[in-house]
Amino acid sequence: MAAKVGIVMGSDSDLEVMSKAAEVLDVLKVEYDITVISAHRMPDVFYDYAKSAEEKGYKVIIAGAGGAAHLPGMTAAIFSLPVIGVPIMTKSLGGVDSLYSIVQMPAGIPVATVAINGAQNAGILAAKILAASDEELLGRIKDYAAGLKETVAAKSEKLAKIGYQEYLKESKK
Amino acid sequence: MAAKVGIVMGSDSDLEVMSKAAEVLDVLKVEYDITVISAHRMPDVFYDYAKSAEEKGYKVIIAGAGGAAHLPGMTAAIFSLPVIGVPIMTKSLGGVDSLYSIVQMPAGIPVATVAINGAQNAGILAAKILAASDEELLGRIKDYAAGLKETVAAKSEKLAKIGYQEYLKESKK
Amino acid sequence: MAAKVGIVMGSDSDLEVMSKAAEVLDVLKVEYDITVISAHRMPDVFYDYAKSAEEKGYKVIIAGAGGAAHLPGMTAAIFSLPVIGVPIMTKSLGGVDSLYSIVQMPAGIPVATVAINGAQNAGILAAKILAASDEELLGRIKDYAAGLKETVAAKSEKLAKIGYQEYLKESKK
Amino acid sequence: MAAKVGIVMGSDSDLEVMSKAAEVLDVLKVEYDITVISAHRMPDVFYDYAKSAEEKGYKVIIAGAGGAAHLPGMTAAIFSLPVIGVPIMTKSLGGVDSLYSIVQMPAGIPVATVAINGAQNAGILAAKILAASDEELLGRIKDYAAGLKETVAAKSEKLAKIGYQEYLKESKK
Amino acid sequence: MAAKVGIVMGSDSDLEVMSKAAEVLDVLKVEYDITVISAHRMPDVFYDYAKSAEEKGYKVIIAGAGGAAHLPGMTAAIFSLPVIGVPIMTKSLGGVDSLYSIVQMPAGIPVATVAINGAQNAGILAAKILAASDEELLGRIKDYAAGLKETVAAKSEKLAKIGYQEYLKESKK
Amino acid sequence: MAAKVGIVMGSDSDLEVMSKAAEVLDVLKVEYDITVISAHRMPDVFYDYAKSAEEKGYKVIIAGAGGAAHLPGMTAAIFSLPVIGVPIMTKSLGGVDSLYSIVQMPAGIPVATVAINGAQNAGILAAKILAASDEELLGRIKDYAAGLKETVAAKSEKLAKIGYQEYLKESKK
Amino acid sequence: MAAKVGIVMGSDSDLEVMSKAAEVLDVLKVEYDITVISAHRMPDVFYDYAKSAEEKGYKVIIAGAGGAAHLPGMTAAIFSLPVIGVPIMTKSLGGVDSLYSIVQMPAGIPVATVAINGAQNAGILAAKILAASDEELLGRIKDYAAGLKETVAAKSEKLAKIGYQEYLKESKK
Amino acid sequence: MAAKVGIVMGSDSDLEVMSKAAEVLDVLKVEYDITVISAHRMPDVFYDYAKSAEEKGYKVIIAGAGGAAHLPGMTAAIFSLPVIGVPIMTKSLGGVDSLYSIVQMPAGIPVATVAINGAQNAGILAAKILAASDEELLGRIKDYAAGLKETVAAKSEKLAKIGYQEYLKESKK
Repeated sequence: MAAKVGIVMGSDSDLEVMSKAAEVLDVLKVEYDITVISAHRMPDVFYDYAKSAEEKGYKVIIAGAGGAAHLPGMTAAIFSLPVIGVPIMTKSLGGVDSLYSIVQMPAGIPVATVAINGAQNAGILAAKILAASDEELLGRIKDYAAGLKETVAAKSEKLAKIGYQEYLKESKK
Repeated sequence: MAAKVGIVMGSDSDLEVMSKAAEVLDVLKVEYDITVISAHRMPDVFYDYAKSAEEKGYKVIIAGAGGAAHLPGMTAAIFSLPVIGVPIMTKSLGGVDSLYSIVQMPAGIPVATVAINGAQNAGILAAKILAASDEELLGRIKDYAAGLKETVAAKSEKLAKIGYQEYLKESKK
Repeated sequence: MAAKVGIVMGSDSDLEVMSKAAEVLDVLKVEYDITVISAHRMPDVFYDYAKSAEEKGYKVIIAGAGGAAHLPGMTAAIFSLPVIGVPIMTKSLGGVDSLYSIVQMPAGIPVATVAINGAQNAGILAAKILAASDEELLGRIKDYAAGLKETVAAKSEKLAKIGYQEYLKESKK
Repeated sequence: MAAKVGIVMGSDSDLEVMSKAAEVLDVLKVEYDITVISAHRMPDVFYDYAKSAEEKGYKVIIAGAGGAAHLPGMTAAIFSLPVIGVPIMTKSLGGVDSLYSIVQMPAGIPVATVAINGAQNAGILAAKILAASDEELLGRIKDYAAGLKETVAAKSEKLAKIGYQEYLKESKK
Repeated sequence: MAAKVGIVMGSDSDLEVMSKAAEVLDVLKVEYDITVISAHRMPDVFYDYAKSAEEKGYKVIIAGAGGAAHLPGMTAAIFSLPVIGVPIMTKSLGGVDSLYSIVQMPAGIPVATVAINGAQNAGILAAKILAASDEELLGRIKDYAAGLKETVAAKSEKLAKIGYQEYLKESKK
Repeated sequence: MAAKVGIVMGSDSDLEVMSKAAEVLDVLKVEYDITVISAHRMPDVFYDYAKSAEEKGYKVIIAGAGGAAHLPGMTAAIFSLPVIGVPIMTKSLGGVDSLYSIVQMPAGIPVATVAINGAQNAGILAAKILAASDEELLGRIKDYAAGLKETVAAKSEKLAKIGYQEYLKESKK
Repeated sequence: MAAKVGIVMGSDSDLEVMSKAAEVLDVLKVEYDITVISAHRMPDVFYDYAKSAEEKGYKVIIAGAGGAAHLPGMTAAIFSLPVIGVPIMTKSLGGVDSLYSIVQMPAGIPVATVAINGAQNAGILAAKILAASDEELLGRIKDYAAGLKETVAAKSEKLAKIGYQEYLKESKK
Repeated sequence: MAAKVGIVMGSDSDLEVMSKAAEVLDVLKVEYDITVISAHRMPDVFYDYAKSAEEKGYKVIIAGAGGAAHLPGMTAAIFSLPVIGVPIMTKSLGGVDSLYSIVQMPAGIPVATVAINGAQNAGILAAKILAASDEELLGRIKDYAAGLKETVAAKSEKLAKIGYQEYLKESKK
């Protein structure tokens, strides 16, 4: 089966953050490609990527970028299906520059923006988009959410049992 | 045919902005419901809405809210399919409060955030999500995009023809 | 005697900050419960918590959360007595996202917001709220404030005595 | 019966906003005093006010101020019971200056901060604080909340009935 | 003689601001073209524009855009000569979104950014760039600067002569 | 007697704000000159102004500017006595640009910065600086402060007498 | 000779920053007192300090505080001579909270605000204020400024001589 | 051949950042001078520098400064050819102070502003300005851009080949 999700980022320095999208798609058993393409440094390669994405079978593209982050919006300008934008944190401005550059798109060209460095959520959102027509995937997403809930519930129980001082001591170990 | 998209907002003062989502869904021939539910003032009604949304057939929910905007995130906590958040502009902070309250979701619970007051884009994004499994809708979306392009192109031609002074004079009429 | 104050937070990563509320309530001899409940990851558990809080005897709830921090506001939507919100500092935006998400509540549903990471003050504020009808507790709060004053006064005297160069040297030891 | 709530503001230009606190306290049948005292322009009067507040029977003080808003924090430095701060919107910075000046209090001296221009919520919060030891007042607060819920519910029904176009037309009349 | 400067903007709603660049280039006798091209709504047309700009003889391009403003940066990604970016003011965020989207470019692809709505300065900067190899144009730029100086000097003299009260009265007429 | 205070601003569009400094100096009977000098458009005139200021007898200079506001800092770089900076409000950024440009001076070159549009306070601060060696002026400043206090006290009394509803009605007349 | 300058801060954690004011006053041979007084934790002590400052002979007070920084403004409300405010950097908001709390004072009560953590400049500014009536001190200030200039000039020469690569290598040693 | 580009900065603490401009000009074979001149600490030296720049043969000046960054704007006020401003990152405000102080110039005096700490881009922009009349330099700039593209392309290929897990492992070595 062909990949349904494209993951693209402007620089390999974004890979550590963006790999969280890949990891969660692995868990949810969604096929994806992951690549580095700079809209600024290689505009032609980028155009080809965005233009051929639909016929390659992508149903969603996750694009991450930092600073004057144009990759998600420019992808959305060319690719007709949903584009998810991940604003990468920046040293000087904390990522508010990336966030504004991605979320404040003009009418006609939406980018589905997630939190600063929120690549894991970008992966989940991509899966949810595919799940709108895939009951089995929706089931896996619900199982995943149930797992998150159980994790917090277990911590909650542990806290109730051992008290906050002990809990803090253990988490520092 | 049942509605595929739910549009919900926290207050009827958001309706003027949020109606742009409805309008574009009308153009794209996507069925939707539109309603006002305050997660803060009527939490029980809200919970029922979010919990029953999947069985009512919603594939996407568009939620708009301003200030400490919890409606989109809380919807995403309950509804398993995609939630699109529209940050409503506020008088004091310009909507940056709404934006942060919607986009900065914790890992596990994404909200697909669009621009401040970007309800039209929320509608288009909802349609794109449905189009991931609906070729005909995808066609209508492409036609819509082509229409936007032609509108700009026509303006561009007019500007070339009459010059910027004349253009500005006419647009002030 | 039943607990009067509920302390709740969205993630155990907030515990180090939120434990300062518990510590000061210990000092002021106010009973409290402390727990981890994610409004986003376990909305049902959260609803039950907020709905049963009044009959469990809570008079005040202190809720801490970071980013798109919905826990305090959603608690205030359900629980009729005072809710104190603690915005947790975030790496990207310093906690201004948490602050806006908590303080900018719509008319009708107040959250008593304290400083970013201000859990100690949240504990003191909870005690002051209870002290509005508890003279003895008010006495302990005044003693506590007197203690703070004496601590500063002692430092002030020391500075006057040894001079600022020596003072700085000692505090670096 | 003596007044339970003091409402104080730094300038009579804040009165239009701060009167919303008074109005909601009227609805909730809570006695209050309302006055203008500038901590900056009349520090002695202010000190007397804050020092005598407890013996005058105030259980809560609501303090509103804009810009470098010191009134709420300085009140909290002197008055031992809860102080609620209302950041007043400013022309240049939208009130973010007022918000930071009020909410970012140091450890030991909390101010229960509400939204920018959130005086109505300050009134409700004051009532909730008193309601922690006043069952009847708690009942009135719950009725008030039920009224807010009904108002939204009525709007929601109307929207369902007449559709958003008609609704918008009517609200513009 | 062929045009040396291209002025491009993403929407005709930017024309009123961007026309200030054209006006000052008229004064400085620099040839220019002015057009509307949306990088988001017509990416192909935009690519052609940017790619053919050098052979059309442009030595500088002035690009204005608002919100998630990608036009200047994407132009700079394709066109090898200087690109000047004009951040257009926005209603919600005042143009700080436009500014960050334009100025925070990654290493390798500079955009010469001017002030929010600073189209007049963009025109002057374009002329200064051309003047680096055009002594006559440099002369005209110096004359223009001298004119600005004289205008202020005249105001200064008038103020000295009639006093500030009278000056303010006259300027309100 | 020679003028003791120089008031200077970068543009006559700042005069309406800056005239408040002149007005309060009139009230406090402090001699001043007021002029318009652009450090950017007439750097030579500006240099002469700043260099000759001491020998002209100025003891303090009040400098107002907006946006990239360099006038106060550059004056402080040349003039050895105190310089007071007034950040002028801007349309796009509310004056936070002016504030940062004036207050964030490097070590060695202080500018005594007042609030955005705070020219009246700049005048008072100039007077206070002169009053450090002028007992009579100090007396006039204390009288002025007493007047401010009385104004607020009168409003406070009126509010106590007629109630807030009536007060608001009267102030809207 | 009595001290002319009072240096006061809200917490001994501010001492490292505030000691820079003392150091430069030592260099400029200006007498000062330095102390820690919290306006929030010991309001009575603070009032006495501010009220008795004039008769103790202070001509200027330098007040440093962080977060909701009320110390400088409250000092200025009581002490009639110039007050210089030093906004202390904060972990969460970088000190923008301190800056706004100090600089945005209402009409009538100026605080001469310097840069975030700008205590050295506060010291210099205090000296300049005293120098308005003290020719010898003015001379020392000019010598100090000349020293700063020479320091930079020496670095400039060194850079010209050894080149930037070598310069960077040496400064990393 | 005489230097075409002047690189100037306000402090030698900016040299590490600013040296990136020099490095890229070395690569592009553009002659430059690099020096440290503080507009604030040595205004006379600065004036001479800016005034004599044109006759020394500079065609572009790159000026870097942090905080209340006046050097670029003041250079642009005196030097008639293009000035490029580099906002240096600051500890407290991340460099947004530097950015606003540089980019928000008034009409008539543009500064071509690049990203915070964007000195490499300042160097490239200076080269592009010179390349407007230097075909050979334009060729070298294009080669440089091609090199950047190849670097990213190589990373992209490597990622495709070894997968993201392996890639991340290697980059951490």
